[in-house]
Amino acid sequence: MLVPTIEEEGFALDIAGIRKAITPSTKAIMYCSPSNPTGTVFAEEQLRELAAVALEHDLTVITDEAYEYFTYDGHKHFSIASIPEMRKHAVSCYTFTKTYAMTGWRIGYLHTDEELIPQIAKAHIPLAICAPVVSQFAALAALQGPQDCVTAFREHYQAMRDLMCSRLDDMGSVFAYQRPHGSYLMFPRILSEKGKDSTAFCKRLLKEARVSTTPGIAFGPTGEAHLRLSFCVSEEKINKAFDRMEAFLK
Amino acid sequence: MLVPTIEEEGFALDIAGIRKAITPSTKAIMYCSPSNPTGTVFAEEQLRELAAVALEHDLTVITDEAYEYFTYDGHKHFSIASIPEMRKHAVSCYTFTKTYAMTGWRIGYLHTDEELIPQIAKAHIPLAICAPVVSQFAALAALQGPQDCVTAFREHYQAMRDLMCSRLDDMGSVFAYQRPHGSYLMFPRILSEKGKDSTAFCKRLLKEARVSTTPGIAFGPTGEAHLRLSFCVSEEKINKAFDRMEAFLK
Repeated sequence: MLVPTIEEEGFALDIAGIRKAITPSTKAIMYCSPSNPTGTVFAEEQLRELAAVALEHDLTVITDEAYEYFTYDGHKHFSIASIPEMRKHAVSCYTFTKTYAMTGWRIGYLHTDEELIPQIAKAHIPLAICAPVVSQFAALAALQGPQDCVTAFREHYQAMRDLMCSRLDDMGSVFAYQRPHGSYLMFPRILSEKGKDSTAFCKRLLKEARVSTTPGIAFGPTGEAHLRLSFCVSEEKINKAFDRMEAFLK
Repeated sequence: MLVPTIEEEGFALDIAGIRKAITPSTKAIMYCSPSNPTGTVFAEEQLRELAAVALEHDLTVITDEAYEYFTYDGHKHFSIASIPEMRKHAVSCYTFTKTYAMTGWRIGYLHTDEELIPQIAKAHIPLAICAPVVSQFAALAALQGPQDCVTAFREHYQAMRDLMCSRLDDMGSVFAYQRPHGSYLMFPRILSEKGKDSTAFCKRLLKEARVSTTPGIAFGPTGEAHLRLSFCVSEEKINKAFDRMEAFLK
């Protein structure tokens, strides 16, 4: 079951909604923070509430923390697994893809209680056997090498976030957005009638304006009438994409 | 549903058994040839019969042809997809793992009718997104580079197959086997009472004789009382492993 986040509150968790969605057959709660696609960094206070809900119902919380190092404006990433009581209730998933820009290497890792690992391996082995060996060595080099790149990426993404928001501000009649405080993604709402079908809107942007975006519907029914935009690109590309969109949408 | 192969006929396909196993809910037939774990190269004649069965019942045949280049003694690999009528009924899976000894690179490919590819991608993308990019370049280099290694591997495996069979001949009171004509695996039956539990037998071999094998039960219920042995190793290792097994089993 999907529980929509609260757009007006910067796509914050809807703890009451999550409580209501739990049934006797619920086994786990999954979330992604910093969030793909909204760029929201769920607040520590909310995640502590979520942990309390999980413990109360004996649920596992499975997290996607791929963007943990990319937060802005003083927002801090909080890992629910850092709550001692969650020790046997959290499966935290990470990747080298974002932190070290190693997308093509297809390698990540997870952290959980030792007892759960063999059960997870039962699913992992038939699907993947193992992460590529060459990627394991590449990941080791990433971890052992200088970490300046992570800071440099963060600073670049923050500047590109600022640029993208300012370009969106200039298109206030077309898009309304929540400022992302993490990840390198944002999820503006399309205000015009045409945006109600985000897939058709994206296809037109791609074919006619030659700008690649992701339709919001891909992220669940309440994602409709949104676009996912990535600011993991250069200043030049963001400006070119917005120039094209402006020309196209006029 | 599993249809056992016929051990006495070198683990040949049981076409009559396959016919019997088909129900109205059957969608596909899967097989592996050259076979893991038995080393059997299914005969072209049998595969043509299998294709006729598939076409008669409108089934898809999904093949694992990982060992296609490793056949011996004049046995030839036959791809069921080479039968023109099978065009829309075959999904043939291949890998670089065996042909080019690229196990750790985690890259393979499949061949099927164009219409089926988007459906297969629907499952592939959530599970893997894509093969590692570095592995795609490595695979390209393997395809474009000299192919002598494939011949050299084949000759080595054939020699190791001969050595392993001759060492098994010397242990005729313990093992009975079908000579493999493909892959680098074989599947001897354990004749002694202790072999009835192949998992326990393998564990004892590993811990007490320090020889690593795979229990036959891992390949289905009729695999029980067998061991899977790999001759994808050096002459020295095969001899050392058999010396240890002989000492242990005496």
